[in-house]
Amino acid sequence: MGKVTFRSLNGKAAKRIAAVALVTTLFVIILNISSTFNKQSSSQSYELKENSLIYTKLKQEPYHGEKPKATFVTLARNKDLSSLLDSIKSMEDRFNHKFQYDWVFLNDDEFTEEFINATSIIVSGTAKYGRIPKEHWSFPEWIDQDKAAAVRKKMKEDKIIYGDSISYRHMCRFESGFFYRHPLLKEYDWYWRVEPQVKFFCDIDYDVFKFMQDNNKKYGFSISMKEYMQTIPTLWDTTKKFLAKNPEFIHPNNMLDFISDDNGESFNRCHFWSNFEIASLDLWRSEAYSKYFKALDEAGGFFYERWGDAPIHSMAAALFLDRDEIHHFGEMGYYHPPYTACPIELDTRVKNKCYCKPEKDFTWQDYSCTLKFYNVNRLKKPQGWAQFSEDEE
Amino acid sequence: MGKVTFRSLNGKAAKRIAAVALVTTLFVIILNISSTFNKQSSSQSYELKENSLIYTKLKQEPYHGEKPKATFVTLARNKDLSSLLDSIKSMEDRFNHKFQYDWVFLNDDEFTEEFINATSIIVSGTAKYGRIPKEHWSFPEWIDQDKAAAVRKKMKEDKIIYGDSISYRHMCRFESGFFYRHPLLKEYDWYWRVEPQVKFFCDIDYDVFKFMQDNNKKYGFSISMKEYMQTIPTLWDTTKKFLAKNPEFIHPNNMLDFISDDNGESFNRCHFWSNFEIASLDLWRSEAYSKYFKALDEAGGFFYERWGDAPIHSMAAALFLDRDEIHHFGEMGYYHPPYTACPIELDTRVKNKCYCKPEKDFTWQDYSCTLKFYNVNRLKKPQGWAQFSEDEE
Repeated sequence: MGKVTFRSLNGKAAKRIAAVALVTTLFVIILNISSTFNKQSSSQSYELKENSLIYTKLKQEPYHGEKPKATFVTLARNKDLSSLLDSIKSMEDRFNHKFQYDWVFLNDDEFTEEFINATSIIVSGTAKYGRIPKEHWSFPEWIDQDKAAAVRKKMKEDKIIYGDSISYRHMCRFESGFFYRHPLLKEYDWYWRVEPQVKFFCDIDYDVFKFMQDNNKKYGFSISMKEYMQTIPTLWDTTKKFLAKNPEFIHPNNMLDFISDDNGESFNRCHFWSNFEIASLDLWRSEAYSKYFKALDEAGGFFYERWGDAPIHSMAAALFLDRDEIHHFGEMGYYHPPYTACPIELDTRVKNKCYCKPEKDFTWQDYSCTLKFYNVNRLKKPQGWAQFSEDEE
Repeated sequence: MGKVTFRSLNGKAAKRIAAVALVTTLFVIILNISSTFNKQSSSQSYELKENSLIYTKLKQEPYHGEKPKATFVTLARNKDLSSLLDSIKSMEDRFNHKFQYDWVFLNDDEFTEEFINATSIIVSGTAKYGRIPKEHWSFPEWIDQDKAAAVRKKMKEDKIIYGDSISYRHMCRFESGFFYRHPLLKEYDWYWRVEPQVKFFCDIDYDVFKFMQDNNKKYGFSISMKEYMQTIPTLWDTTKKFLAKNPEFIHPNNMLDFISDDNGESFNRCHFWSNFEIASLDLWRSEAYSKYFKALDEAGGFFYERWGDAPIHSMAAALFLDRDEIHHFGEMGYYHPPYTACPIELDTRVKNKCYCKPEKDFTWQDYSCTLKFYNVNRLKKPQGWAQFSEDEE
């Protein structure tokens, strides 16, 4: 197993600030007693003298509510640092500075000191750094290397995105079947996946993990869309074979109608975009998913085709979960190149102080599958959704 | 005078949330009694049921400390909206969501409904919208139009940035002599200028306006640099003539040594980059500055050359203020294309949770004047500054 590094600079910074406070000549705490209806104050200001200058500082207390065992998780390379810092700060600004959840960073290589320093500074919870074990980021012994190389060559010729990439395939396989087995994730029940280059546009004023727990949700998404079939020609057939052998894993109230328009005969390409995921780790640790991933891995499609973790997670969630356990987070706003999710209702944007432009929203466009998600689950769609769609169902 | 629009969607949103809370079936307030040393809680969480889903919400109380009369001020066109939203959200995230200062938006044209809606949503204080009166955004009667047109043509040929722009000249003149006279600014003593396309990298946990007031600061900057002399060939001579006639305005403890290396004979091009300014409005409302601006305006250099508000504000601050009234905000981090200010000391970045990369810092580079500012004022420079500079004074 790879090296694991823990950092809680938050604690260090707190100690440093406390030390400075002790040695300065002036340290006056002015407690601002709020006169609001519930007689509680949200912040304390105090004066601090530093280098002969007076500062009126505002102290933010950590969150004291009951918190599920949850963490952010990010798979990143050292070269992703710049764009990842933007992603982390965005998540901290919108949500995590209020709740201080931990953050697990995983890499197939060693993280640099620069990476660890820069990211741990801005994570309000504890930042943890793990290296991915070799066996989770390499070809399984049963893969025919010549066959896999021929596929990459052909996909390159066919100009399929990442078609000739080996590391992209390891990444998809890792996100499909291994990230939740990393020792750093053992202590957690929930995770929120965050990638470099993403943005969150709306303030989130509730504990999203507790929301998942309290409402019995197991999988949450922001953007859904249609998959490129050239990357997964045999994935659905492989899935069907697995289901035929293991019908007991199919949930009686499953959401097959989201991923198939002909009662399971064929896959309709609809999947949740997995660069954003808020989910239960137990979903992937379950017997059903463990056996499903094993069957997929043995079929070799990660290397003989270019199976993505997004359609795999989506098929598993749609088949193994109760449809009511899947949730669309429509009020957060989200950006991952090239798509933006932005709440189209002004009320939602006002309430959550969103700074995105609704005309850029992808959610209700034709290439998205979120309209189908709302329709098959008979959910109330936001006002004005039809303006974004040609297919006004 | 132009139209003025006030918006406080914050209040509307609060009422809406309160109304939702009343009609929902479950409204349980769980008060989190903090057990920290000072027995104060920074946040309150409560459960709210909405559309049969349970949310554990966190309520952030507004700031109750004593606040100076201060506002953000932004000059913007409707087409700047997208990049301005990023700037505002950045300022709200780093600073203003904790203190809720107002924000004044000024435009030489009418703001669109889209602009007003999108910006007022994300400002935590009251957002106010004003149109600039025609007389503050046009050629004064004494300007010779043919001469001004010939200058623009020549500057275009010489490839001087904005050399042929009329609106850029109106903007520089407005920021030099008129923004602080707009009726919307009347009620304020302090302002913080924010432009589209800027970013703030470090959390600011103290009341910056109160800092200015308590420490008797009048002008604060982030980035300084050297001016293009082609845009201001006669500005210093015009300034010297004004000073010769009005020597009483020169402060005995002025900072002439920041803007001149030969005791006032010539301007050394050093100025504060005025897209970031935290300053006292009284500085510009003073008799000294009023007469100074009038003299400059009558000399016609805004149109016969291309005088910028940055060197003009800088000369005035350096000459009319006590040098101790000018402050460098070095711990905030700031970006305005193409320059980045990023605290070079790790301790500062840790304490303020900065997400910028110190190797991009412009502050101590040769084209910056901040090293000179520290030297002439005998201020302690941060550790490692010399690595960024060739000119190790």
